[in-house]
Amino acid sequence: MKNINIKDLARELNLSVSTISKAFHDSHEISEDTKNRVLETARRLNYVPNPYASSLRGRRSKNIGVVIPEVADSFFSLAINGIESVAKEKGYHVLICLTHESFENEKNILKEFQGGRVDGVIMSVSTETSESGHILDLMANGLPLVFFDRVCEEIETAKITTDDFESGYKATEHLIQQGCDKIGFLGISKCLSISNRRFEGYQKALNDHVVAYDTKHTVSCTNDAAHNAALIKELLQRKDHPNGIVATVEKLTTPVYLACAELGLSIPGDLKFICFSNLETASILNPSLSTITQPAFEMGQMAATLLFKSLEKTSFSLSMESQVIPSSFIKRNSTD
Amino acid sequence: MKNINIKDLARELNLSVSTISKAFHDSHEISEDTKNRVLETARRLNYVPNPYASSLRGRRSKNIGVVIPEVADSFFSLAINGIESVAKEKGYHVLICLTHESFENEKNILKEFQGGRVDGVIMSVSTETSESGHILDLMANGLPLVFFDRVCEEIETAKITTDDFESGYKATEHLIQQGCDKIGFLGISKCLSISNRRFEGYQKALNDHVVAYDTKHTVSCTNDAAHNAALIKELLQRKDHPNGIVATVEKLTTPVYLACAELGLSIPGDLKFICFSNLETASILNPSLSTITQPAFEMGQMAATLLFKSLEKTSFSLSMESQVIPSSFIKRNSTD
Repeated sequence: MKNINIKDLARELNLSVSTISKAFHDSHEISEDTKNRVLETARRLNYVPNPYASSLRGRRSKNIGVVIPEVADSFFSLAINGIESVAKEKGYHVLICLTHESFENEKNILKEFQGGRVDGVIMSVSTETSESGHILDLMANGLPLVFFDRVCEEIETAKITTDDFESGYKATEHLIQQGCDKIGFLGISKCLSISNRRFEGYQKALNDHVVAYDTKHTVSCTNDAAHNAALIKELLQRKDHPNGIVATVEKLTTPVYLACAELGLSIPGDLKFICFSNLETASILNPSLSTITQPAFEMGQMAATLLFKSLEKTSFSLSMESQVIPSSFIKRNSTD
Repeated sequence: MKNINIKDLARELNLSVSTISKAFHDSHEISEDTKNRVLETARRLNYVPNPYASSLRGRRSKNIGVVIPEVADSFFSLAINGIESVAKEKGYHVLICLTHESFENEKNILKEFQGGRVDGVIMSVSTETSESGHILDLMANGLPLVFFDRVCEEIETAKITTDDFESGYKATEHLIQQGCDKIGFLGISKCLSISNRRFEGYQKALNDHVVAYDTKHTVSCTNDAAHNAALIKELLQRKDHPNGIVATVEKLTTPVYLACAELGLSIPGDLKFICFSNLETASILNPSLSTITQPAFEMGQMAATLLFKSLEKTSFSLSMESQVIPSSFIKRNSTD
């Protein structure tokens, strides 16, 4: 079916394009009568009054959508900056939508994006996301998509990730080298590839160094801060509590420090702690925090660069473009 | 792939467009059976109801726009959560756009929003924003707008702010009571109402307590982290450096702590420091950070509640609804 554009509408109504445009913008220069005629005819012809004059012309909204769980995590705020640095150069706006770790929200956002609001999507999935039909739908509608950090492994498109297995391994090995023999692991959702890869690295390091693995020292955290704090306190209250912990997300730092303070455990004396984190304050914490730091800005930049390549050149295949960018291990006082 | 429109769907189901439309709007005129058939077929054909069909009819996109400088600041990430908590209840999506403190970006975003993408806007202006024509344009296009935190004072609409003057006064008075007699002030942009109000409170407290005000101890920070770090180091390197500092934004904490570490100044021994901040890690910093903490979540919630009131009831006047919610002073070790 032919799309009706504003010129067709103007011809049909025997009005100028500018009058129609003013009518849509509810201008005081246009009479109510004319406004009603324009709206009725637009409706009859199924004209889509496009913010989108430009999307009508070039089928472009000049927006890209970014779908992420939250912005309270420094990783995501830095990644957004990376994405925006590329989008700005391309003259695009970035619309950020948050899932708050809800699969339902994620589905609704992608559905909403299919209405023509965005030309492509950059995404990091929620902790609840265990299926990918909603993402396949989006792509079937012709919207290119690039994953960063939290990916759906089964979907064929570009994925910008870090070396999660190696980092999990490195963090754990560091704790072993610092003398820890009871090492805990604070994960998030079992659905998440990143959490699983980090866990596998942790397990492999324990195994390689013949350090016992104790399921009681493995905690699966959620999106509920109070619940996480309770789980962490419970873990550290045990008689045989871990003397080393690897945590997979930044937000677990404060509850670990606070639980130690409350229970009279010293970091690093009683517990050595290392966290996957881009916290700017890592170096000024008490004690300063050893981290696995992801190249968040670069990952956002890379994801956006690939998305724009695919927008600019339809022959460009995103599925061949996945990249793994290494994280950095930064030793500070929390694992002394 | 061809996009399926409502007419294609009608043809496929052998129903009228109006029946389909009514089914989508859950009209009581349509049987449950028919509704289910429509929904199933829509799902099967991957039909996306065009948001603009409904904006034509009901003039609603079911999106609200949030325009803020950045998300790296905990204040903004918490405020977003407050906004989203209300939007979710109303069945609205929140599109977040970042200005990165650029007036040019801010203008472009508001322009973009006038195309019908959003039904209303919640906004905190950039540090560069010293005029308000772009905001008046948006409002003239019939989009309601609510400010939070960083407002344009001359624009008549709801403004959700905190008691910036009183908080600046309280922070400064606290430093005086702790024995400081050379008190510095780290501001941001002179265009920003919040920075100015906090500065006025600071000056008034100095004046009331007969403490000298020294312009050399007042630093105007920018959006450039390296530049801010250099300015702060320069201030603390002076022979007559301040022995107390009030900082107006969270991101100035790390450079102050790092400069002190580098220069061998102890906090709070040589410098007592208090910052306007919602940092989750404030209590685990070395030393823990005394803060003026804004009710960020509540401010977002309040701003969104007012915006929805005005969307639901055109007679509701936002300009009468400004609110000032008090901040909390939290004493920790950095001002001992």
